[in-house]
Amino acid sequence: MTDVVNLQKKLDSFQAHWEPKIVGELNGQHVRLAKFQGEFIWHSHAEEDEFFLVLSGSFEMLFRDKTVTVNEGEFLIVPRGVEHCPRAENEVQVMLFEPAATVNTGETGGPRTLDQLDQI
Amino acid sequence: MTDVVNLQKKLDSFQAHWEPKIVGELNGQHVRLAKFQGEFIWHSHAEEDEFFLVLSGSFEMLFRDKTVTVNEGEFLIVPRGVEHCPRAENEVQVMLFEPAATVNTGETGGPRTLDQLDQI
Repeated sequence: MTDVVNLQKKLDSFQAHWEPKIVGELNGQHVRLAKFQGEFIWHSHAEEDEFFLVLSGSFEMLFRDKTVTVNEGEFLIVPRGVEHCPRAENEVQVMLFEPAATVNTGETGGPRTLDQLDQI
Repeated sequence: MTDVVNLQKKLDSFQAHWEPKIVGELNGQHVRLAKFQGEFIWHSHAEEDEFFLVLSGSFEMLFRDKTVTVNEGEFLIVPRGVEHCPRAENEVQVMLFEPAATVNTGETGGPRTLDQLDQI
């Protein structure tokens, strides 16, 4: 319950892109780690705001009206209901905070949906 | 609402120790940045779990039955109800994730309590 978690060790333990792993849980929220490369899909979350902190690399978050670049040491909060699509030319390592109920593809669903996330 | 936040720029904008600043809000939770140096006070939070991620430096979290060291790139979750006391020999920069209602001194209160946190 009060163990120290090393982010790099957790990141080194998986390779898959677009498959967030649960590394902590508090107050009904998850701390997740993910690796992005390529382009994901457009989606939004009806009930969940999402926090993305870049641990290494950078990525672009596409919104319908703008694109923002998030570099290492920077974070972005995507409010519920806002359509977004993450894209990374090169691999980026990201920490997420979001409600435990958050589904990776939001309201869009489809083949890239993960029904269950691994806890690592 | 979807602005990118640079952690170092925010950290460079304040000096005070033990005075967390709000840098983001989502799902009723705050993302806070803080600088610790010296020893805080023993306290617990009846209703809130707290997440501490070290951005630079290191600190010790004292528990009643053990002490853990949290280094740069590591995080610790302190569950609600668990007494703790952070201590840092040298300045440490920390990102916190916790419910917006979380009071810095928890149930202990006293002169080090901050009634309101700055949003920076």
